This record gives sequence, C-alpha cells and structure tokens, in this order.
Amino acid sequence: MCGIALIAGPGASEALFCQMLDALRPRGDVEEVLVADGLGGLPLEPGGKTELETAHTPNLDGLAREGTCGLSLPVLPGITPGSGPGHLGLFGYDPLQHRIGRGILEALGINFPVGARDVAARGNFCTLDGAGHITDRRAGRPTTERCAAMCQKLKQVKVPGVETFVEPVREHRFVVVFRGDGLGDAVNDTDPQATGVAPLPAKGADAASQKTAEAVNRWVAEATKVLKGDAPTNGVTLRGFARYPKIETMQEVYGLKSAAIAVYPMYRGLARLVGMDVVDCGSTLADQVKTLERLWKDYDFFFLHYKYTDSTGEDGNFAAKVDMIQRFDAVIPQVRALGPDVLIVTGDHSTPSKLKSHSWHPVPVVLWAKTCRTDAVTEFGESHCLRGGLGQFPAMYLLPLAMAHAQRLAKYGA
Amino acid sequence: MCGIALIAGPGASEALFCQMLDALRPRGDVEEVLVADGLGGLPLEPGGKTELETAHTPNLDGLAREGTCGLSLPVLPGITPGSGPGHLGLFGYDPLQHRIGRGILEALGINFPVGARDVAARGNFCTLDGAGHITDRRAGRPTTERCAAMCQKLKQVKVPGVETFVEPVREHRFVVVFRGDGLGDAVNDTDPQATGVAPLPAKGADAASQKTAEAVNRWVAEATKVLKGDAPTNGVTLRGFARYPKIETMQEVYGLKSAAIAVYPMYRGLARLVGMDVVDCGSTLADQVKTLERLWKDYDFFFLHYKYTDSTGEDGNFAAKVDMIQRFDAVIPQVRALGPDVLIVTGDHSTPSKLKSHSWHPVPVVLWAKTCRTDAVTEFGESHCLRGGLGQFPAMYLLPLAMAHAQRLAKYGA
Repeated sequence: MCGIALIAGPGASEALFCQMLDALRPRGDVEEVLVADGLGGLPLEPGGKTELETAHTPNLDGLAREGTCGLSLPVLPGITPGSGPGHLGLFGYDPLQHRIGRGILEALGINFPVGARDVAARGNFCTLDGAGHITDRRAGRPTTERCAAMCQKLKQVKVPGVETFVEPVREHRFVVVFRGDGLGDAVNDTDPQATGVAPLPAKGADAASQKTAEAVNRWVAEATKVLKGDAPTNGVTLRGFARYPKIETMQEVYGLKSAAIAVYPMYRGLARLVGMDVVDCGSTLADQVKTLERLWKDYDFFFLHYKYTDSTGEDGNFAAKVDMIQRFDAVIPQVRALGPDVLIVTGDHSTPSKLKSHSWHPVPVVLWAKTCRTDAVTEFGESHCLRGGLGQFPAMYLLPLAMAHAQRLAKYGA
Repeated sequence: MCGIALIAGPGASEALFCQMLDALRPRGDVEEVLVADGLGGLPLEPGGKTELETAHTPNLDGLAREGTCGLSLPVLPGITPGSGPGHLGLFGYDPLQHRIGRGILEALGINFPVGARDVAARGNFCTLDGAGHITDRRAGRPTTERCAAMCQKLKQVKVPGVETFVEPVREHRFVVVFRGDGLGDAVNDTDPQATGVAPLPAKGADAASQKTAEAVNRWVAEATKVLKGDAPTNGVTLRGFARYPKIETMQEVYGLKSAAIAVYPMYRGLARLVGMDVVDCGSTLADQVKTLERLWKDYDFFFLHYKYTDSTGEDGNFAAKVDMIQRFDAVIPQVRALGPDVLIVTGDHSTPSKLKSHSWHPVPVVLWAKTCRTDAVTEFGESHCLRGGLGQFPAMYLLPLAMAHAQRLAKYGA
C-alpha cells in the first residue's frame, strides 16, 4: 500500500503519485498505452530519415496533430535499457529503483511461473577440460534441441531440502530455479567470464543467501557428474541469481485496474510483475486489437505490446521495420474508435536497424487526450517529436502524465 | 544557516546555491519576479489559442523578444500544484522537500499570525445526529455570517494547559490553533471523510503529538457541548494539523533582501514563510506597482503577485482571463522603467479556464536580463515558450537562474 512514509525512500515519485490519486472523482475513463517495442530509430545515412519518419503513418500523424508529442528517456541520457527497465519505466516505475535480476527475466521469458520461495538463475552450458577448467564458455553454441536434451538430463539432479527446476531457453542458455524456504539471492555468479579457469564456487553474502549458495554448489557438482560424458556441453555456469521482486501493483500505486495485451512471454511476465491482468490475446496484432475491443469496458488501463518493430530493428532490416510500423499504424483507427480518454503511442526504447540492437536514443511519444495542450507537431517521428509539448522527459513520468490528462490526480498541496 | 552538510539531505539544491553565493561581488542589482497566478492555459478547442496567446500583450512580447523564454514544471510532470507548492518552487525551494500543512495554509490565508509554539488545523462545521454520527460533512454549507457566529461561540472553549484560537474562514470552514509548549503535529484528521459515522478521535504518532491529540479531543468534546443546540452546525471535524514549517529564509539561502508585494493573505503568508518582508501595498495592481516604485532602492528582490489571472481561470471565464492578462501586460513598461537587472514574468501554475481549476500543464516563463542568451521567441505564449532558450525545467531552478543572470552566483568548483 502507498503512503506518505514512502516519499523519501525508493520509488519516491511513485509514492507521491499514489498520494495524489483523486479517490472521489468518478471513474469510467480508459487510458491506453500502445508500445511498439524498439520504436525509435536512426537514419541509415546522416541527414536521412529514421524508420518511423520513412514509414507512411497517416493515423499516427493524425494523433500527433491532435495530441502532444515528445521524446522519452527510458532510464538516463546515454543509457540503453533492456526490456525490463524499458517496460518498468512505461508502467510508471523508476527503473533505477526497481531492478529485475537476470534470472527472473530469463524465467519470465520462458513463461516459468516464478513464486515467492524461488531463486532463479540464468544457466550456460560450457565446455570443461580434464582439469575442470572452462575451454568454451558457450559450449560451442549447441543447437536448441541439444540444449533441451541436456536440460532433460539435468532434471534428474536433486539437492536435499531444496526443489530444483531446469528449463531450456535457446542454444547454450537455460534457466534453473531453486525453490525452498528462506533462500536469499545475494549470490555471486559462478561464471568466471574467462576461459582456462574453473567455474567459481557460489557464496552467499548473508545467511539466507549462504543457504542458496550451498544448494547451488551441490547442484553444480551433481550436474557436472551427470554431464561428464557430454562434451562439449559437459559443464554449467550460473548467473543473475534473483528472487521475484516485490513491486507494488499498478492498482496500489496508480489505482488502475490494468490489462496487458502482449503476445510474448517476457512482456507478459513484466506486466504480471506490476500486477496487471495478463489476458489471452491470440498471436497477431489483429487478435490483440480484437482482445482490446472485447475487454474495453472491464479495465481502466490497457498496455498493448507490439514486438515486430524491435525484432526487425535487431535484424538490421530497415525496410522491414518500416513495414512493421505501417502495419501498426493501420490499427490506430480501430483503437481510436473505442473512445479512449487518453491514448499514448510510444516504445520502450529505440532499436535502430542501423545498430541492430537496443540503443540509448530518446523514444518518440504521442499523447492524445481532450485535456492536452496541443503543439505544432503534425507528423509522428523523432525529429518532429523534438519540437513537441512534452519535451524530453524520463519515461517513468509518462503514466503519471496519462493519469493527469485523464484528470485522475488530485492537487498536490493546498 | 546554509552549509555543505545539507547537500545530501532535504533542500540539497538550495544548499548548493547557498554555497555558490558570491559574497565578493558588488551589490546594488535588483531581481524581480512578477507572478501572474495561474498564468498558463489551454485553447478552448484543439489547435486554438490559449488565453495568453489570445491576449494582446505588446509589452510581454517585447520582454520575450529581448529575453529568453521557457516553460516551468511546478512540481513534477503531471502534478497539479496547490498555491503552496507552486509558490515555494518560484521562491527557489524544492516543493517536494518542503511541505506546508493545510492547517498552516488556512491560517496564512486568513492572516492569522502563527507562531513557533502553534499547531494549526483546518476545521469544518458538520451536522451530527442524535447518536453523534455525521449526517452532513459541511453542515449544509452555512453562510459565512453563521460560520463567524459559531466561531464566536467556540472561542469560549478552553482546554487546560493549551491556549486555543478559533477564526472563521468561509461557509463551513474555520481555523483552530493550539498553542503550547512541546506540541507535535503528527496527529490524524478527525474528519472520517464519510457520513453515518462519528468523527474520529485524534491520536498522536509520538509523545509530543499525543499531547496535541489530548488537547484536540478535549477541545472537540467541549465544542460539541457548546454547539449542542445549533444544528445543522452542531459538530466539528479537524484536519491538516500542522506546525509552522522551518524553512531557511531567502536571505539565508540566496542572500537576498526580499519584499513581497501581494494583496491576498495566502500569498503574503507564503512569502512570510521564507522570510520575505511583506509590505503594505494597497489593493490594486496600480497600488502594487506604486509600492514597487516606492521601495525600489530598499531591496534586492521583489515578488509581485497578481491574483486575477487565476481567479478568472477558476471561474472558467476565458475572455475575462484574457482581459486580466492584458491589464497585467499594461504595467510592464512602468516596471521596466525602474531598471531591474533581472525581470521574470511567470505563473505559479496553469489555470486553464477550460478546466476551471489549477492544472499540471507547464507554465510560460520569460526571463529578461542583459546577460541572457536571447532565443528566437518573439511572442509570450505557451507554444512560443516551447521553443525558448530555457527549455522545460523545474520551477525551483528559476530563482537560481535569476541569481545567475544577476551574476550573484560564484563558480561551482575550481
């Protein structure tokens, strides 16, 4: 629950917004954030147009004309966010205060149901020589099929007093979850990030984490026995030990009954982290929009996640990203027809196809509401957003801005 | 007094600016902030002009041409400030660090001289039924005359060991001040914010506040006896218990000898909170400007408060707000004739007549000084300020910017 006592601590601004909730105001309004993953981009040549600027987006341009635009900074200037911090910011949480361990993110990404008694870790298959030293930290990048077969073997490994789960991810990557009472997650990575040396023993920084470390060391020793004849996948390293983070829900912080309309497990998991209802929504953008229509009257807030602007950017395929943006633009009229009170379109970070990766560049934002102060922006794109009324601002303020424009926040101070 | 020890604590940036004061620089310069309350607005229709953009303001436009413009964020993006936080920001104080309780604001608003041994509370007359349960939280909104008569009765109520003061505000609202040694203000509201239940007993969260709570409970019990036959004004609830906040003065933080030229008690009280001299200034804008002329040589800093841009906005009267802005514009030449070194015109928040209330929208700012970097802005208005040299910035940095432009701040670091 929120309260004034939180103001000076972590998540201070969330606690402030929580206080400002205007409990007396009649509800019935709907806020919506459409996230085109990795939306922001770069021109291929200096002076050229970005993917978004190249795309023909009459509907997004219409939103920009009628709404107010800006650029969001997911974390801090120059910081490239992963999907975790990128989304936490969009959900109205300070990504510097709330950290999601890699083990948890990997588990969310394969839809593993992490619980309160779990410590999750990211595992790598590696190759060990006769002396037990690492010769290849990624075991020659095995096929995902081999990864699955090796994980099947590892499921035999038992540790007294702690339940363990092993699930394959892809190539050399897998997830291990240690489940038991009082397990801490202040445990070092066993991956030494080097070859020619043995994996590191796990150590716990406190009593609870020491308990985890003991289970980890036993599990690794047994796993190494089980994999003895399986070179090059005859060893394991673990890193990013993490418990499920305690994050106040969006209902608690922002008073919003929220639904996540996301196809991929990672984003569904991130939405679940902040207490959203993660709904069945099919597998295509058309399915997602149908889901939105079906549930429109049941929620105050919708988060709709569109993956393909990011994946085409990661592939370095400028033309394909342009195409995916255009497909995204095409559903805007259907979304507007529902009559949202506040509609926001943005990304969780930039993924310029020129860089084939996430980047630190600010992310285009358009916010449409009857209460917004319109600006001179008439097209939705990076260079146009630079002149928008929202300016450049930390992404974590976007949800409060949505709340303000829905007139859901009370005055601060008399 | 200011010092480096404060840097990491509350008011950190104030302490930094305090350190930067350049004691060696010759004085004699004058900085001035003209505050048109609730200055920022919204167009009535998307794409239209705001009140300020509609108004004919040749003198403010001249300042914008010769100076530098921007938009200030009073608290945080999306947060609508009350008058307290709005003004603290303009006075160079972090409104998230310095909070002014409602009791104190109400007392300031009626010009009650709150002292160091006082705890002030906002009181409401309410209607109680035979069982002592609230049937109307505002006692049917009595006339202000009846409120005054009831307060006169309440002045009889005495509590052992604590002096009490009761003053009417308006309709059902009044102020109670508890004066004594060692009274804390961590006391809950007795207003349950509901009908059908009795007022809540006061409880103190610490020993000093427990002492206050005991006095409050005795006072309420006696007050209820005194008002027994006075339905519908036969009960009271109290909230916003607050001591006078300890805020370093503008002299201490910024080295400024400051005068407040404000007509309304609330703003006079806010200025007194930060140690300004609150001077007699008549009741019209013309009187206020004459006061400025009279005192010009006696102070380093003037705060002039103009109320009517806010009150017309609160009334939802677009045309009247435009008119009030034009009247304000008309006095600018007289102010400039005095030869200020730095002249700033802004508001403490936006009050769009479209919303009939304070809002979260950024506030137009123009800063004129010989040392400013002029920008391309040629008209004073929300959309023009968006392209100004000051960008969008927290309002609490405006006073340091004034100091800098007056060359009153030293270098930070060697």
